[in-house]
Amino acid sequence: MLIKEKIKQAAGLLREFDLDCWLTFTRETAINGDPVLPFLVPGDLTWHSSFLVGRDGRTKAIVGRYDRQMVVDTGAYDDVEAFVTGFREPLQAYLKTLNPRTIAVNYSEGSEICDGLTHGMFLTLQGTLAEIGMADRLVSAEKLVSALRERKSAVEIGHIKEAVRHTQEIYALAAGFLAPGKTEKEVADSMYGEVVRRGLKTAWGRETCPAVYTGPDTAQAHYNPTGRTIERGHVVNMDFGVKVEHYCSDLQRTFYILEEGEDAAPADVRRGFETIVRSIEAARLMMKPGATGLEVDAAARKVVTDAGYEEFPHALGHQVGRFPHDGTALLGPAWEKYARKPFRRLEPGMVFTIEPRLMVAGRGIVTIEDMVVVTETGTEWLSDPQSELILIRG
Amino acid sequence: MLIKEKIKQAAGLLREFDLDCWLTFTRETAINGDPVLPFLVPGDLTWHSSFLVGRDGRTKAIVGRYDRQMVVDTGAYDDVEAFVTGFREPLQAYLKTLNPRTIAVNYSEGSEICDGLTHGMFLTLQGTLAEIGMADRLVSAEKLVSALRERKSAVEIGHIKEAVRHTQEIYALAAGFLAPGKTEKEVADSMYGEVVRRGLKTAWGRETCPAVYTGPDTAQAHYNPTGRTIERGHVVNMDFGVKVEHYCSDLQRTFYILEEGEDAAPADVRRGFETIVRSIEAARLMMKPGATGLEVDAAARKVVTDAGYEEFPHALGHQVGRFPHDGTALLGPAWEKYARKPFRRLEPGMVFTIEPRLMVAGRGIVTIEDMVVVTETGTEWLSDPQSELILIRG
Repeated sequence: MLIKEKIKQAAGLLREFDLDCWLTFTRETAINGDPVLPFLVPGDLTWHSSFLVGRDGRTKAIVGRYDRQMVVDTGAYDDVEAFVTGFREPLQAYLKTLNPRTIAVNYSEGSEICDGLTHGMFLTLQGTLAEIGMADRLVSAEKLVSALRERKSAVEIGHIKEAVRHTQEIYALAAGFLAPGKTEKEVADSMYGEVVRRGLKTAWGRETCPAVYTGPDTAQAHYNPTGRTIERGHVVNMDFGVKVEHYCSDLQRTFYILEEGEDAAPADVRRGFETIVRSIEAARLMMKPGATGLEVDAAARKVVTDAGYEEFPHALGHQVGRFPHDGTALLGPAWEKYARKPFRRLEPGMVFTIEPRLMVAGRGIVTIEDMVVVTETGTEWLSDPQSELILIRG
Repeated sequence: MLIKEKIKQAAGLLREFDLDCWLTFTRETAINGDPVLPFLVPGDLTWHSSFLVGRDGRTKAIVGRYDRQMVVDTGAYDDVEAFVTGFREPLQAYLKTLNPRTIAVNYSEGSEICDGLTHGMFLTLQGTLAEIGMADRLVSAEKLVSALRERKSAVEIGHIKEAVRHTQEIYALAAGFLAPGKTEKEVADSMYGEVVRRGLKTAWGRETCPAVYTGPDTAQAHYNPTGRTIERGHVVNMDFGVKVEHYCSDLQRTFYILEEGEDAAPADVRRGFETIVRSIEAARLMMKPGATGLEVDAAARKVVTDAGYEEFPHALGHQVGRFPHDGTALLGPAWEKYARKPFRRLEPGMVFTIEPRLMVAGRGIVTIEDMVVVTETGTEWLSDPQSELILIRG
């Protein structure tokens, strides 16, 4: 279903971006899989495999003999050609018939999600096309592959919503488990146990999903839960998501561990938390089709720095899909590592996280990560945004 | 442990192949991971990350700020530099100090296992090096990465042996479960249940691991078990493996379902099976350091065709490691899709499957896949090779 839906979408995108043909060229996909493959074929491929979509919607696959039946079974290809000794001749023959002005292939400097073609396979393809005088027709499929992943269908959004629901329910259970004296690792293990009980998978590697950071002086992000003990007066933050039908959630929540006698967080923690809530709201109000990620990031970042905190050393938000980081357009600053991503304009169907952070000295990291989908006029929440610190009584 | 061991091995390989520096350059590895990464770092990386090994054994990593601690914790790098906005300046600065004549990077037309660098990342690297006049120093690291994966340590061989042991035990259980009237899918599910009970993972995708094919007219390979029913007089073959500590097994076994009143397989099935056993033995006797995969494949292939069967449309055997297909040298014919792999010479420490196949008309596919490690003088079995048809009484 997904495969037919996405291939049809790809044909429309070829016309939209004035490209003649999209070619995905890959081999031994269990080792070097192109991230676009789940939209084209349901399993792994062994030998050099070519998947071609034309702007007229015509589709062709050229695969090794043993992979043929799986591709035929998708019902998404007008013709599936199988080879035993080599892909070169059948691919050249088909391209000569098609004679496309442009052949869009999956490479991109600026977007990892569109960069599934390895350099070795690029050289092989270039050599193969040179033999039929078409080497100069290769262009990047970045725009097409970006749009294919970013413009989510109702079915894809539905899976993400379901992943968000599970994540929020497991966070609620974690709040009941959190207590002074517990370690980061114990909290993470209890959450992971619930993931397994529900028959789910974590959205990213188990080592850092969930990630749990208690108090000051932690690794802050991307680091596995440690034996560090949760103490009264700590700010605790967590980063966690699951997959439903291969689609991810990615949410962060912030907790405060009350001191004995306290009924509310102290002023410094409250101020930090409220700053993050305001930062997210500033971003959300900017988000609509046509806005750039750059301006959205800047609005949220300004709330944090205007309040006197150090700016966060990462983008404000990323797209979510089959990977936790999935998409080209990014809510981010114009830093080298983000290439042109922050300059892309928002489109309906894009799913973003919004996740500013700041440090409250001596307490810990305050961060919220919630998720929205861009609509025709603005955004819609996919999660129930955290609006209050979660207070934990010792 | 593995990381320190492999990085030390890499420094030796730089000297052996007269290279100055090995650079692995990658980003968002959950999306486009380089298959060599598990030898360099224990988890996923987000931003543009560089891992450099010099021929003097000096090591350096340049990674995003949040990934730094994980890399430091390996204890395998002399220096781990973290960046916030971009990788370019720190990488250029380090390379200017090192001033290597050659910078070997992970691309290869002929070997997928050495082709982890995407084309987009190659372009980024080329641009980065051009700014410091080093773009022409990029060379392929194929030889180094091949040897790093192919020359297995005692620890790696130990994991593979353990995976083989589990696989053989589960095959023995499957023989007790196999019976006329069962479907391919029921047999596969019972084996998969045992994989789960043992807390293991399958060596490749669950859909085709185990693969079960009963009787004539099946998809033959790489296809998921169907509702096809096992019948008396069928030849049944299976392809199955598991992972232990990330290292794989990959074994095929052939069964014959006795007709009522039969005590042995009929002559046509026996003749097919014996041909496969002889084919494997012919290959094994050729295998020793210095032999090419081409000549080993030819010896085994000749036994099958001399006996009047159609030749198998795939290579005789592949290397096994962290993937079921893992390595450059291949026991295969000189077909286009195998590039130069069959021309590589065998080296001690390489782990190969040997897996000829043939069809017995009206009965099914006869195939055995066993595993050997190349030693200084020949080979050693890693599995207990199948020498008799497994007879199933109805």
